[in-house]
Amino acid sequence: MSVTAAAGFRAAGVTAGLKPSGRPDVALVVNDGPEHVVAAVFTSNRVEAAPVTWSRQVVTDGRADVVLLNSGGANACTGAQGFLDTHRSAELAAVAVGVSAGDVVVCSTGLIGELLPMDKIESGITAAAGSLSADGGEDAATAIMTTDTVAKECTGFGSGYTIGGMAKGAGMLAPSLATMLVVITTDAVLTAEQADEALRAATAMSFDRIDSDGCQSTNDTVVLMASGASGVSPQMGEFTAILTQVCVDLAEQLIADAEGAAHDITIDVQGAANVDDALEVARSIARNNLFKCAVFGNDPNWGRVLAAVGTTSAAFEPAQLDVAINGVMVCRSGGVGDDRSGVDMSQREVKVEVFLHAGDADATVLTNDLTHDYVHENSAYST
Amino acid sequence: MSVTAAAGFRAAGVTAGLKPSGRPDVALVVNDGPEHVVAAVFTSNRVEAAPVTWSRQVVTDGRADVVLLNSGGANACTGAQGFLDTHRSAELAAVAVGVSAGDVVVCSTGLIGELLPMDKIESGITAAAGSLSADGGEDAATAIMTTDTVAKECTGFGSGYTIGGMAKGAGMLAPSLATMLVVITTDAVLTAEQADEALRAATAMSFDRIDSDGCQSTNDTVVLMASGASGVSPQMGEFTAILTQVCVDLAEQLIADAEGAAHDITIDVQGAANVDDALEVARSIARNNLFKCAVFGNDPNWGRVLAAVGTTSAAFEPAQLDVAINGVMVCRSGGVGDDRSGVDMSQREVKVEVFLHAGDADATVLTNDLTHDYVHENSAYST
Repeated sequence: MSVTAAAGFRAAGVTAGLKPSGRPDVALVVNDGPEHVVAAVFTSNRVEAAPVTWSRQVVTDGRADVVLLNSGGANACTGAQGFLDTHRSAELAAVAVGVSAGDVVVCSTGLIGELLPMDKIESGITAAAGSLSADGGEDAATAIMTTDTVAKECTGFGSGYTIGGMAKGAGMLAPSLATMLVVITTDAVLTAEQADEALRAATAMSFDRIDSDGCQSTNDTVVLMASGASGVSPQMGEFTAILTQVCVDLAEQLIADAEGAAHDITIDVQGAANVDDALEVARSIARNNLFKCAVFGNDPNWGRVLAAVGTTSAAFEPAQLDVAINGVMVCRSGGVGDDRSGVDMSQREVKVEVFLHAGDADATVLTNDLTHDYVHENSAYST
Repeated sequence: MSVTAAAGFRAAGVTAGLKPSGRPDVALVVNDGPEHVVAAVFTSNRVEAAPVTWSRQVVTDGRADVVLLNSGGANACTGAQGFLDTHRSAELAAVAVGVSAGDVVVCSTGLIGELLPMDKIESGITAAAGSLSADGGEDAATAIMTTDTVAKECTGFGSGYTIGGMAKGAGMLAPSLATMLVVITTDAVLTAEQADEALRAATAMSFDRIDSDGCQSTNDTVVLMASGASGVSPQMGEFTAILTQVCVDLAEQLIADAEGAAHDITIDVQGAANVDDALEVARSIARNNLFKCAVFGNDPNWGRVLAAVGTTSAAFEPAQLDVAINGVMVCRSGGVGDDRSGVDMSQREVKVEVFLHAGDADATVLTNDLTHDYVHENSAYST
């Protein structure tokens, strides 16, 4: 159900012919209200795609009616014409749905550096608007897939309200930086400020803590729309917690479908002086190619973990570091620990625990291994 | 000739049995004077190997007589026993050569997290000391190889003096973070301060500007020894320039022999506001796995270059970025430039030029592509 699980939303996904494969590639998510609250977070990449530049403006007033999404082209590094095309797409969607273009968020994903075929976009928008329905969430989730092998949806239930979301992307592991796009809807009654605050809290604990390959997209967008259709003004602590659960679930689905990955790796840093330290340590491991290759080889190579930790500025003493891999404490006090032949890495899930002994803060980052399939999928596909 | 090209030095390389392959694995480089000046730079990794901890102390007084090197074991993450082993190795070398243990620099390279077999180290030191000769440079360069496919040597000539060097390592692309070790000798007359200043200037422009895979070793060491045997006190501008040439030459040899690499990539950032900006941009590209995979696939994927540049804090306007790959300006003003089908990437050498249009500063970083062989060599080797 995803984005149409909450009351007040319709969605659609259609085939406009943007993808050579002939698979669905244009989606619409419409908020029928009664309220039209929006909040969004975008990529921090300074080279941002035209739809990101556009959508940043759309959400500044806290109101949006529609999210238009396309796969089959990122509309990034496309200059002034690319922005005009995004603007035109928003106008077409606005006319088709009967709203203002300034209330249409636009998201694109696919190859960088190519203009979108606007004739196909136009017919796609018309077709999508004609097939909007209150159970169109799955069609929409399917239409935003690029190299994803499965559609990614999630629904959470609060006290009298619902939160539903869809996502696309294989972390940041996809060809030509194909994008992480996420649309979340709720029928809770929220102010724009409440939506923004809850979304930033939820993404900080979910999408900001997955890191497939350290590569940052030009198009990443996470949008939250609130229709107020439930009539329920939620307790914000509960709402934020459920929203975070939905985001974590979708983030885990992204990592599980990351291109070429053979292992999903949970890096759990404990005993840090503060959360920033814990995150810096976790990310340094998540981005260490040597460690990620070792995991692909089912090798519990804790030396590579320590070498990655050593590059950070986090508070710790090298001689106090402990590392467990899949529950076996292979490194104790910065040196050899328990016999690493006892580590079973045959399963897809791998857990790395690093104990810094510098405080009480923890953080977890999800990543993948570095595999032949990753190299293949990111080098051999047609340009 | 390498480390024995300059007058006043002897060297040796022998087989001590540390490597299962039975190849040479212990080397000595001895400075017979009349002067015994030393300078060194070490890894900035906070998880540093025992020989690094030891050698930092040795060089603090600006004097050293011997560099003892072994392959076949990194002596990293080996705790108090590892440090005792390094100390013991220095004492053995000191006795064998007839100097003080406090003047013996020690370098180790190989697997992390295993103690060295000290009986083999001891017999290796005895054998190496017995075979020291003024033309032993090549033997020494061979004995420090790990996954290197060729020994790496270089000699430079100044006005009445000589600078010679040897290096090992495949950038930082090697299994278990096998190390970049470099020993450079000169018969110029230098003070310890002059040696230190010249070495830091030279390494900043050479070894600090290669980045195979962003992974930082626990053992990296670059040592410069000056014997004064030429009797020539060099003009320091000339000396530093020649030393830098020697270091750049060795750095290029490291990149050219990087494990699994199919392309050597020169990233040349021009028009930066300052050198730090230029380096930040160049490194962000050098560490972008998606771009490195594209190069492996002979794909001039400039969108991935821009996406990497966009993650930096350097001064630039996205709409002003130009990118040339192998001389073809594939990206102009942040958008599509010349036809990328005109880019020939069939050669091993690839040149990426990024024009920031923000100032007059330039910097160049050397890296490699990300290949199946990289994944294979870093995942499939025996642990």
